[in-house]
This record gives sequence, structure tokens and C-alpha cells, in this order.
Amino acid sequence: MEEARAIVWCTVLGPELTEPTPPVLMSSKPISVLITGANRGLGLEMVRQMAETQGPIRALFACCRDPGGPRAEALQALAKKHKDTIKVVCMDTADQSSIKQSAQQVGSLLEGKGLNIIINNAGILTHSTVADSTPEDMASCFNTNVIGPMRVIQEFLPHLRTAAKDSGMSGMHCRKAAVVNISSSLGSVQSALQSYEGFKAVPYRVSKAALNMLNACATVELQKDEILCALLHPGWVQTDMGGENASINAEESVQGMLQVINSLTEKHNGALLDYRGQTIPW
Amino acid sequence: MEEARAIVWCTVLGPELTEPTPPVLMSSKPISVLITGANRGLGLEMVRQMAETQGPIRALFACCRDPGGPRAEALQALAKKHKDTIKVVCMDTADQSSIKQSAQQVGSLLEGKGLNIIINNAGILTHSTVADSTPEDMASCFNTNVIGPMRVIQEFLPHLRTAAKDSGMSGMHCRKAAVVNISSSLGSVQSALQSYEGFKAVPYRVSKAALNMLNACATVELQKDEILCALLHPGWVQTDMGGENASINAEESVQGMLQVINSLTEKHNGALLDYRGQTIPW
Repeated sequence: MEEARAIVWCTVLGPELTEPTPPVLMSSKPISVLITGANRGLGLEMVRQMAETQGPIRALFACCRDPGGPRAEALQALAKKHKDTIKVVCMDTADQSSIKQSAQQVGSLLEGKGLNIIINNAGILTHSTVADSTPEDMASCFNTNVIGPMRVIQEFLPHLRTAAKDSGMSGMHCRKAAVVNISSSLGSVQSALQSYEGFKAVPYRVSKAALNMLNACATVELQKDEILCALLHPGWVQTDMGGENASINAEESVQGMLQVINSLTEKHNGALLDYRGQTIPW
Repeated sequence: MEEARAIVWCTVLGPELTEPTPPVLMSSKPISVLITGANRGLGLEMVRQMAETQGPIRALFACCRDPGGPRAEALQALAKKHKDTIKVVCMDTADQSSIKQSAQQVGSLLEGKGLNIIINNAGILTHSTVADSTPEDMASCFNTNVIGPMRVIQEFLPHLRTAAKDSGMSGMHCRKAAVVNISSSLGSVQSALQSYEGFKAVPYRVSKAALNMLNACATVELQKDEILCALLHPGWVQTDMGGENASINAEESVQGMLQVINSLTEKHNGALLDYRGQTIPW
């Protein structure tokens, strides 16, 4: 485990977070975090930055479909480097029984302590238009990008509640209990009328708009437990999904997203913010 | 067939349609319309009002799952009364092969003439929360309420294009070529943070937010063919779906929606309007 240390978490970011909020000295209590789709791209970079810069962390559950496969080698190497913190967990968010099994595994590892943050990062992208999207394209994207996050919330909710109760903090904060759903500006219906020609991907856009609604429902449903919910747009990022022409790299995107996550309080509960902290319209 | 007659279509409705638009004398050319979920509730009332007040109509394709069953008796009676106009068509929007078959049947009945309006009205409502929605609830609602409308658009697109080409009208209008998707204020992510406690129905809300995005994508994709796309919120209506405590009856809702539909031009392309013509936020 890393040593507990006090950290200045609140960074002023963008116009949405420009109110004169003084830096807040957050609890130095170690937290537990779960990240899905953690073997590559943004997920892998999140695990790295969480482990290396966001301490104190008690446990970082890095979930991916095939922890023993060639696509998880970088994650396994990172886990070896931070062997007291990072726990690699098998979870396929498209498979209901896999989510259930991983929840049982994580539950055991938590040993009755709470889970403070879930980052629903796993997602798939399908490029097709209204005219040529198949029912299978649509159902598959919806299953991984919407039903998956919902099932993760359901399975891990008892552990989030434990974290909220045991935090000793008032109000809402990510180091108390939070669900962060990785969405996209492409899920903004308002923007789609302008942006659609440049990036069609109908099943993906539709799934992200659906995820935004799921997050809104979860926001209201979980607020009585003081569990914060938020949506983040990572930017257009140079990953397998974003392609090499994207505008920022994963390091910059994740740096921004972690700053935003750390700045969230109840006044941002339910918000859709980009990696710079700016609100994206629905 | 009803006699062709000139009709004043454009009615000024609510703040979104309050610009000083002069009433427009629309084409008196008979149109063809297709309505899904036409055997009861709003769909049935739409067929009735379309047939009785919205002439001239060449053909009104009233689609439902089981035209020979007891739940289609009222529609069959209406079709008998307007036997030159109303054609009852078997279509289960949850079943891909059924949509394809009905498109073939309607294609034959159109005899090379276009289809001017599709009203994607069929939909299902599931009441469940984030905590208790099943993957099956989510997938089923998404299949009927989102994939169904997409497949209907795909299958009938050639007929919409024919209608747009043959209309002799410039710009966009529902009597030229239009897709009207029946959505809901419950699909508004912005409103959900306030309205969720009063009406949970997560699978339904998620599917309607997804439908709103599908409509946005279709709006851009079909505009080169001058096919108008819009979303309508029917209000909270006393139907099997809305329940007996709802605030308006089906007649009032449909009267309003038909006025809104008739008032749409390219400036409303892609909009989400309620039955009074007021814009609903995304």
C-alpha cells in the first residue's frame, strides 16, 4: 500500500468550475477504485495515473476481458510494478455472468471495506450510418456501452454504499463514493445535428445518448446514499478507438479527467463534463 | 379515395412556432401515410383522425402485430368504415423479418408511388429502476423503441425518396416526405434529474433518449433527399400505456400532434416538440 498523505484535490478547471472554490484538502483515507476496460487505451492510462499520482489508494481493481491474453500484457506489467495496489480482475462487460463473477471476486478482496469509485470505461465503437446499421450493431453497442455499466452499478452498489457510510465525509465527493461513466460528446443529441456528417457511428452515438440517460436516472436514485454520479467526455484521444489522427494523447486526456473527477461535488452530480471540466450539452 | 381539396395546414402553435409565418396553402395532392402500433391508443386515434380530418389521403397503412386478433378489432372496424383509404398491415416492430415482409406488402400496394409520412408510434413501456432493471428489460425496450424505428426507416426509405422526388414541392414538409418518431419528454436527459422520482421507467427513458439520437442522425442523413425528420412528445395521455390518471385524452393529444406535424418545415427539421408545438430540451 502507498503511504497515506494529504493531497490538494480540487483544481479549478474551465468555465464550469471557475467559481472561486478554494482548494480543498481532501481526506487522506485510502480509497478503492474499479476501472473497466483497463487493459488498453484510456483505461490502462487511468490505472497508471491512478496508481502513480492519485494516492493514497488501497486497491485499484483493473478489469478486462482476458487478463491472461496478449492484449493485457501492458496492464500485467503495470500491476507487477504496483503489486500492492493494482488487482487485475477478469470482467467482460458484455457478459452478465462475467460481471457477477467479478463482483464476487472484488467483494472478497474488499474484505468488508467499501468501493469508493467505479469508472465505467469499457466501451465499443461501431462505425455505421442510419441506412446501414444492422440490428446486431445496435444491440451489441447498447449491450456493452449501456447494459454493461448498469449491471456494474447494480452488482457493486452494496460496496459503494459501504464506502459512503464509512467515509466520515459529509456531502458528495469521488473519494467518498462515486460512479463515473465514460460517455462522449458524440452522445450529445444537440451537437449531433452539427457533428453527424463528420463522424457517423450511429450505434455508438445512440448508445452514449442512452448512457447519458442511464446516468441521469442513477444520479437521482443514488443520491439518497450520497453516491455521486457523473459522465465524462475524454476528448478525441489517440487510442485504438480514437485513431492516430485524434487531437490529444491518452496521458493528457486522463490527466484532465482525473482532475475533473477530483473536483466534483454534489453541485456537479449528474453532469456531463469534458476532460477540461467544460459542460457538454445533452 | 377522398376528393382532393386544398387545406390550410399551418397552424401557429406555442412559443416555438410563434414566428409570423403566414398560413401556407399546401399541396392538395393525395398522400400516403404509414403508422406503426396502429391498433390501439394513440396509433388508433391517429389513424382515425388522419382518415377523417387530414385528407386528401391516398393510402393509410395502419400497421399492427396481429391484425386478425381481438386487440385489432377497433382498427378493423375503422378500416371497414374507410375501406378505400385504410389498409391494415401486419408488422411487429420487434421482429426484423416482420418489418421486411410488411415493407414488401406496402411496396406492392404503393404501385410505384411514394410514401409521404412514416409515423413510428409503436413502443413499449417498462417500469423499473436502475437497481432492478434486467438486461432483458433494457434490450427489449431498446429493440422495439429504437431498433424497430431504425429498421422501418431503412425498409421504407426508397418509398420516402420517391415521394420527395415526385412531390413537386420545394423545401421540406410532411406532405412531401417525413419521418415522425413518437418520443417522450421522459427521454429528455435534462428533465430526468427533476422528473425521475415521479416516473422511473429506466428502460423506457433510456430507449427514448436513444431514439432522440437516432432521429438526429437520420435528420442529417436524410436531409439531402429533402426528407424531414422530427420527434413528438404526445403528452401524458389516457391510454393503456399512460393509464387512467393521465392529463389529456388521446383525441386531444392526436389533434395537437397532427397540427404540429402539419406545421413542420425545414426549420424544425430534427426537433423534439410536444403536442402543443413546444420544444422539449434534450
